[in-house]
Amino acid sequence: MATTATYTVSGMTCGHCVNAVTSEISQLDGVTDVNVDLSTGAVTVTSDAPLDDAAVAAAVDEAGYEVVK
Amino acid sequence: MATTATYTVSGMTCGHCVNAVTSEISQLDGVTDVNVDLSTGAVTVTSDAPLDDAAVAAAVDEAGYEVVK
Repeated sequence: MATTATYTVSGMTCGHCVNAVTSEISQLDGVTDVNVDLSTGAVTVTSDAPLDDAAVAAAVDEAGYEVVK
Repeated sequence: MATTATYTVSGMTCGHCVNAVTSEISQLDGVTDVNVDLSTGAVTVTSDAPLDDAAVAAAVDEAGYEVVK
């Protein structure tokens, strides 16, 4: 069953930033969809099973941004 | 002889934007260096011969931004 989780990511300022975050999170096992709202920093991740929040935070960090909550 | 020209580009918000603009302008004939100051939007282009401003503006537009002066 698909599950979704929403994170708030700081530092994204443009479409390139959105692409960078989307690309990194999409590489996590089980992720089927990533949706980013640039204006709010909300990143909604859909996956086959619940994700490890630390793994998501690490992917965001890898892209050069930070999960703030 | 090398010549330099400085343009002001609007809309760049992050390092990805800087890279996009730098990459497009670098592809113009004769360009040897591109330096972008993100905080001011100043883009300084060094080239072997004076550039056609319209060609620079077209390259910036291709990257998704705009020369404002």
